[in-house]
Amino acid sequence: MTNQPLWHGRFANKTNEAAFALNASISFDIRMADQDVRGSIAWAEAIYKAGILDEAEHAQIQAGLRQIKEEIRSQTFTVKPDDEDIHSAVERRLGEIIGALSGKLHTGRSRNDQVATDFRLWMLDHIPALDAALVDLQSALVERAEMDISLPPSGEGWDGGTIMPGYTHLQRAQPITLGQWFLSHYPPLKRDQARLQELSRRVSILPLGSGALAGCPYPIDRVALSESLGFDAPSFNSLDAVSNRDFAAEFLFVAALIGTHLSKLAEQVVLFTSAEFGFFELDDAYSTGSSLMPQKKNADPFELTRGKAGTLLGYLMGLMATLKGLPSTYDKDLQEDKIPVFAAFDTLIAMLPVIAGALRTLTVIPARMEAAIDSNMMATDLADYLVERGIPFREAHAISGEVVRAGISKEKSLNALTLEEYQEINAVFDEKVYEVYDARASIAKRAAIGGTAPEAVKVQIERAKEELKN
Amino acid sequence: MTNQPLWHGRFANKTNEAAFALNASISFDIRMADQDVRGSIAWAEAIYKAGILDEAEHAQIQAGLRQIKEEIRSQTFTVKPDDEDIHSAVERRLGEIIGALSGKLHTGRSRNDQVATDFRLWMLDHIPALDAALVDLQSALVERAEMDISLPPSGEGWDGGTIMPGYTHLQRAQPITLGQWFLSHYPPLKRDQARLQELSRRVSILPLGSGALAGCPYPIDRVALSESLGFDAPSFNSLDAVSNRDFAAEFLFVAALIGTHLSKLAEQVVLFTSAEFGFFELDDAYSTGSSLMPQKKNADPFELTRGKAGTLLGYLMGLMATLKGLPSTYDKDLQEDKIPVFAAFDTLIAMLPVIAGALRTLTVIPARMEAAIDSNMMATDLADYLVERGIPFREAHAISGEVVRAGISKEKSLNALTLEEYQEINAVFDEKVYEVYDARASIAKRAAIGGTAPEAVKVQIERAKEELKN
Amino acid sequence: MTNQPLWHGRFANKTNEAAFALNASISFDIRMADQDVRGSIAWAEAIYKAGILDEAEHAQIQAGLRQIKEEIRSQTFTVKPDDEDIHSAVERRLGEIIGALSGKLHTGRSRNDQVATDFRLWMLDHIPALDAALVDLQSALVERAEMDISLPPSGEGWDGGTIMPGYTHLQRAQPITLGQWFLSHYPPLKRDQARLQELSRRVSILPLGSGALAGCPYPIDRVALSESLGFDAPSFNSLDAVSNRDFAAEFLFVAALIGTHLSKLAEQVVLFTSAEFGFFELDDAYSTGSSLMPQKKNADPFELTRGKAGTLLGYLMGLMATLKGLPSTYDKDLQEDKIPVFAAFDTLIAMLPVIAGALRTLTVIPARMEAAIDSNMMATDLADYLVERGIPFREAHAISGEVVRAGISKEKSLNALTLEEYQEINAVFDEKVYEVYDARASIAKRAAIGGTAPEAVKVQIERAKEELKN
Amino acid sequence: MTNQPLWHGRFANKTNEAAFALNASISFDIRMADQDVRGSIAWAEAIYKAGILDEAEHAQIQAGLRQIKEEIRSQTFTVKPDDEDIHSAVERRLGEIIGALSGKLHTGRSRNDQVATDFRLWMLDHIPALDAALVDLQSALVERAEMDISLPPSGEGWDGGTIMPGYTHLQRAQPITLGQWFLSHYPPLKRDQARLQELSRRVSILPLGSGALAGCPYPIDRVALSESLGFDAPSFNSLDAVSNRDFAAEFLFVAALIGTHLSKLAEQVVLFTSAEFGFFELDDAYSTGSSLMPQKKNADPFELTRGKAGTLLGYLMGLMATLKGLPSTYDKDLQEDKIPVFAAFDTLIAMLPVIAGALRTLTVIPARMEAAIDSNMMATDLADYLVERGIPFREAHAISGEVVRAGISKEKSLNALTLEEYQEINAVFDEKVYEVYDARASIAKRAAIGGTAPEAVKVQIERAKEELKN
Repeated sequence: MTNQPLWHGRFANKTNEAAFALNASISFDIRMADQDVRGSIAWAEAIYKAGILDEAEHAQIQAGLRQIKEEIRSQTFTVKPDDEDIHSAVERRLGEIIGALSGKLHTGRSRNDQVATDFRLWMLDHIPALDAALVDLQSALVERAEMDISLPPSGEGWDGGTIMPGYTHLQRAQPITLGQWFLSHYPPLKRDQARLQELSRRVSILPLGSGALAGCPYPIDRVALSESLGFDAPSFNSLDAVSNRDFAAEFLFVAALIGTHLSKLAEQVVLFTSAEFGFFELDDAYSTGSSLMPQKKNADPFELTRGKAGTLLGYLMGLMATLKGLPSTYDKDLQEDKIPVFAAFDTLIAMLPVIAGALRTLTVIPARMEAAIDSNMMATDLADYLVERGIPFREAHAISGEVVRAGISKEKSLNALTLEEYQEINAVFDEKVYEVYDARASIAKRAAIGGTAPEAVKVQIERAKEELKN
Repeated sequence: MTNQPLWHGRFANKTNEAAFALNASISFDIRMADQDVRGSIAWAEAIYKAGILDEAEHAQIQAGLRQIKEEIRSQTFTVKPDDEDIHSAVERRLGEIIGALSGKLHTGRSRNDQVATDFRLWMLDHIPALDAALVDLQSALVERAEMDISLPPSGEGWDGGTIMPGYTHLQRAQPITLGQWFLSHYPPLKRDQARLQELSRRVSILPLGSGALAGCPYPIDRVALSESLGFDAPSFNSLDAVSNRDFAAEFLFVAALIGTHLSKLAEQVVLFTSAEFGFFELDDAYSTGSSLMPQKKNADPFELTRGKAGTLLGYLMGLMATLKGLPSTYDKDLQEDKIPVFAAFDTLIAMLPVIAGALRTLTVIPARMEAAIDSNMMATDLADYLVERGIPFREAHAISGEVVRAGISKEKSLNALTLEEYQEINAVFDEKVYEVYDARASIAKRAAIGGTAPEAVKVQIERAKEELKN
Repeated sequence: MTNQPLWHGRFANKTNEAAFALNASISFDIRMADQDVRGSIAWAEAIYKAGILDEAEHAQIQAGLRQIKEEIRSQTFTVKPDDEDIHSAVERRLGEIIGALSGKLHTGRSRNDQVATDFRLWMLDHIPALDAALVDLQSALVERAEMDISLPPSGEGWDGGTIMPGYTHLQRAQPITLGQWFLSHYPPLKRDQARLQELSRRVSILPLGSGALAGCPYPIDRVALSESLGFDAPSFNSLDAVSNRDFAAEFLFVAALIGTHLSKLAEQVVLFTSAEFGFFELDDAYSTGSSLMPQKKNADPFELTRGKAGTLLGYLMGLMATLKGLPSTYDKDLQEDKIPVFAAFDTLIAMLPVIAGALRTLTVIPARMEAAIDSNMMATDLADYLVERGIPFREAHAISGEVVRAGISKEKSLNALTLEEYQEINAVFDEKVYEVYDARASIAKRAAIGGTAPEAVKVQIERAKEELKN
Repeated sequence: MTNQPLWHGRFANKTNEAAFALNASISFDIRMADQDVRGSIAWAEAIYKAGILDEAEHAQIQAGLRQIKEEIRSQTFTVKPDDEDIHSAVERRLGEIIGALSGKLHTGRSRNDQVATDFRLWMLDHIPALDAALVDLQSALVERAEMDISLPPSGEGWDGGTIMPGYTHLQRAQPITLGQWFLSHYPPLKRDQARLQELSRRVSILPLGSGALAGCPYPIDRVALSESLGFDAPSFNSLDAVSNRDFAAEFLFVAALIGTHLSKLAEQVVLFTSAEFGFFELDDAYSTGSSLMPQKKNADPFELTRGKAGTLLGYLMGLMATLKGLPSTYDKDLQEDKIPVFAAFDTLIAMLPVIAGALRTLTVIPARMEAAIDSNMMATDLADYLVERGIPFREAHAISGEVVRAGISKEKSLNALTLEEYQEINAVFDEKVYEVYDARASIAKRAAIGGTAPEAVKVQIERAKEELKN
């Protein structure tokens, strides 16, 4: 038999070559070969139980499919020029192995429910790897926080590790610990993990048994079929089942959000490894040089990570725009669903370990971090000092502001202003004002849940480690 | 006192007017006035418990805040030109009511944790309305399905209601029931509801008590504070707490996905109300005419719904692009978060009831639907007929295709071909072949879970009604 | 010499393998191999003229580069595992051919100005193919319009070809000619062509000679260099030159807009090939069937075209989000620029000829088109009839609307209402009212520039043919 | 007469209130009031010339329209609850002024060609303001460059103004002048201006006279009409004319690209005003403080500008997604076109002057800039020094890299290494090596077109000033 498309019967003329090429999906859906065969194995069993295959036929089909599965595993499975998609390729191969009987496998099944099933299976197969990569990156962050806070005391009785400026508006705002900074990148990824998990439950709904759109005319036990493929349940409505690509859009959303989270981490690392900040030095293994400028050491993996956040966003946008306004149950437009999902997965799986590796190996430069803290950053503490002396916060804030201005005009840092200079601004100031400018004391006060005080950081570390165990 | 920005102390010169206008958010964050006051009420209690306010101060502040809350409720609260945001406006108003004591309220709090709290509160306040609108639209779909399937039998012993073509690739594919079609739009909205609910849990994390970024230096009980505002828990890390806008992006994703789902329903209704399909007629109340063409009756609400799917997608993309690559904990860029969230909410809250109303009032034209079913649409059943006679499906499919081609060349529908004409194609055909072309029989066979058979549709209706009760 | 990255000197440790893989661009920038070599050929000449190479060195380098060019042409050029990008690969290969002298070629040049040059050259090389494909599709549209209007007269004295309903809101609005419909898809593509051309001028600005960012320290004649590579002019500012990726974003915008235009054409063809419309039948060569439903004939290329409009939009979005907020002159994020541009180009180059082919081969079914015109569609003409009788248009419109309602309630088409029935609505009606319902007459009246009257359509055809000649 | 929609005639029931609200566009298209009246004035003249209005009617209509124009100008024009759009409102008002005669104005015109015309007119009216704001920002950049390079010589014979590090990968790369940096932000905006101008020509095509879709049945002189409204030409095809919204998408693309360009400038200013860089200080008028931290001085306008780049991108994406796959000539989806265009315009018109003002008033801190230049940044010059001594560049680059590593391991800057230390690496080094580390000399060498050398910068300034004059 010459290899004709599965649907050749009704057509008099052959497909135009360019149209065939435009239409063919084999170049990318080949990635679902294993899933396609597993779906067929389950389907064969389902139609056997429904009396469509007899025992011998079933056995033969199963043997053929298992052989194909093995060929895929060992990478000896090959695609032929006329295979327009993975489903055709597998069906063609089954025909080569077991002959015309292969034609029975498609009974009651359509490529519409088949491809939706394959794609969901693929996603269920691959989410764990993404989850693991997220966990590993979270672990790297928590490790670095713990490593830092476990450093020998750097000040009297100080057990909070490295201190550094916290930034808002890219201005030095208040002193924080490095542990707090590392941990600030942990919860976004934790949330993303939860999103992935919730998505998984929505992916785990089986479309198979919905036919082309109207349902299956054979007495298939869809609950058993669903269980045999590891799904939670069969789909609710056949029209929705074959056309639903929400899960692909949601996957791309989570991927894009992960991208956004990594882009922020990346931007900060790029800043911190600049000469101006000088807080971090990347290991040579995770940085690159310049073809022209011999002195350069660039944080390429972080820049790429930041850049790829845009690319990931494009995948999301592309698919959602494709899904907009489709007229019928299954429209061929849906074939645009796989490339962005595969690309987003590949992007994250390539990026996440590099980021984790780069974080684990970077060198912290505590002296630069501590040197970046100036007494101006304790201006809020100065306001708090005034609050303690009974001045309403808003007024205290204004007085502190005046002190800052005085400092600027006299070109002195806040702790270098004399007590007279303080008292010129407000009589309430006394000698104790200079205690305000102890960055470690400022940090230690912020001990409410989630704060930067060492004790609050340690609580975060313990909680994160607990979460990462599960 | 002249009304100065909260942060005037450190500045010698006044803000440029155009820069002030660019910076000000009062024009849109005024929508969070009630949330801002509730946040302040809770905060006042928290700092009272922490010993920052004494009982008299606390009572006075509470009275002032409650008065403002009432002014907001009764729409007598007014904004002044110098109020740059809702937080400043409320603080300014409190000062007008209770004097300098108002300055104590901001102790230990920053606009960073305050705005994040207000925004989350607003979302928690508004998700229920969206949820209700989604439920109502789902109910409308289920009602229409149930109404249709409860019609008096239209064929002998037929209890499946109106029959119509199911479409794939916008080609007539297989006969389905109208109930199945209505129900096909139910599960996407159900999934969106689940997404909203999961989002709610992530919104319900309290940032208040994180200060500007480093945490709160006062012994606030953040767990109690969280409970008093109806949140599930306080945030994990102060830096993440003030900068996290995931929940806004996720809200916009869910909104955009709802938009996509509605756009598909809309496209189908637009098609079905065209002269060519003629399946539905919209009630005059939900359609509009033309300024030039007196005969026109347009499905405007559905077209707008389809169009707004694009707009909703733009909101998502805009915010996610804004979030990409931000350098510090809190960056002013985050101020771009509210307008798209408010706009997306308003769009959905305006659209959903109109769509539900239009669906509830549309007239179905069963005769046009049934007339659109031709015997070609039972070609799959013809293949199944051959399968029953022992021919492998793939071969049966090819034979059916030949029958279709014969019909086209002879300009006959499949059920008009003579038995001889059938037998010329394949000897296996017998008189029973004509039974294949009973659309209702074809539908009735698709009784597996989720299928279009009346019994399967009824199961869907019961399950949906059960779900909608909760 | 072992093959080390171009920048190895300053680094003690080797790059991490996963980081190298993330960083490497050779898998996609290999497409610019020819451009890279041409850039090097021009550069070698420029530095020779500037006295950096002597004549012998120049001759040797040119010979080596020409050999590589030939290897690329004959596809014998191979990439090695350590080649991180096409520039490294070419430089490595040149070293293999001519030895250490190859090291002189990079004098005064950086990968930053080199890659920007290669990418622009690639675009200038490929825009003509896209332009040609756009022209061919425009030609197909004009041919079909001309073919149709050249049909033998279908009504008395009628030389306008097939008549059909024009649609707004997917409702039948007014009769038009098929020629007018085909021509409606011509100007959008014409505008896209103009956009491509304007883009070309912006692409044709040479970055080479800008060094890494600060400019070239050797006395290169950048004007001559620009001419030798076929550019219009050298770039204005070196920092902008190496970081500017506007042209890539603009290319993606034009590609996405073409996608949008094609998606509209596609949607309409999908509608017109549905059973309900039945206006077009696609050639078998440009349609596909169903694996389950033997009767199906799907307009897959048009559905894919509609779907790919979303994908193209995603490419645009992705790159623009990547470009947002970059901190320095050249950031590695820019490496994300090529994949979407290549993918957009490939998508359009695959789609455009298929659409053109499908349009050229589709069969028009004039009888279905004409049958879809009912007298209601002349309700505007009815209003015009009243205007001629002195009634202001707005009132005439209302009266026509009443006639339509009367027709609906009496279940008669407008031309089937009796004169009495007309006169019951308004006394001004006379016998001539029935002349209004001649669709061809209605069409023929719309002869103002751009209108659907045959004479106006012919003017469009002539003008389009003239434009396509250039 | 009660105020009914223009299309009431055919409808028995009233529009649902929520559906009316969803449908109404008056809340935003009121911005086109002036354009709508001007379009009507031109249309009245056109139909008068075509014999539809007599002289008296024409005079009366003109008088009425001019009165409305004046009411709009003086802001006494009011909208009524039943006005669904600006066209209805103006028509209603005209009726109030001149009575039933107003009903003649709509003869031969549809809201479809009317709204497309109004929108284009609006854009043509507003592009000049955007253009002027772009020019002003470019001027600010050029002024700052010129001001800087005109500073008194800061080094012996140095006339290049302030020197600073140029960055790639946010790493210090090579010394540049501040003038070169300011000028690097000039050409992107220049290109955007060119894009706006090219867009203008595409906007300047008149749709009026295309009717609802099929053209105008009256003998209107569309060329004269086009001229009277200041358009370049009438549209080519009536179907395309009423549905074409390319120009809106293209406007949003240019706006988003401007946003991207400003976001890059903004990111750099945010960096340069950080404590770590300390290159710029913003004027108080263009920065804001913190509600909690008295010492903060934030570059809010620049952060907002960076953030709004995302928002602008969302507008583009939203509209393009809306345009995807529309089924008919005019679909109501197109009503989504105006809000994003107005919003994008307002955003840019608010941002551009603030950015220009902030640039004009910022204080440069030359000492910090010069201090940020270290001798490592001349490593490329070191390689060039070796090239001059006959070593191929690639080898020279490697040797320079070794020098850099030696410096790092010995904790010395390059110019502090002894000649012996140099010669240990390579014997070619001589005393002249120390001349390499003169940043000004390094800059002065980069004198090729577009380079950072003072003479090349001056050429840029002259050319820019010339361009800005036009």
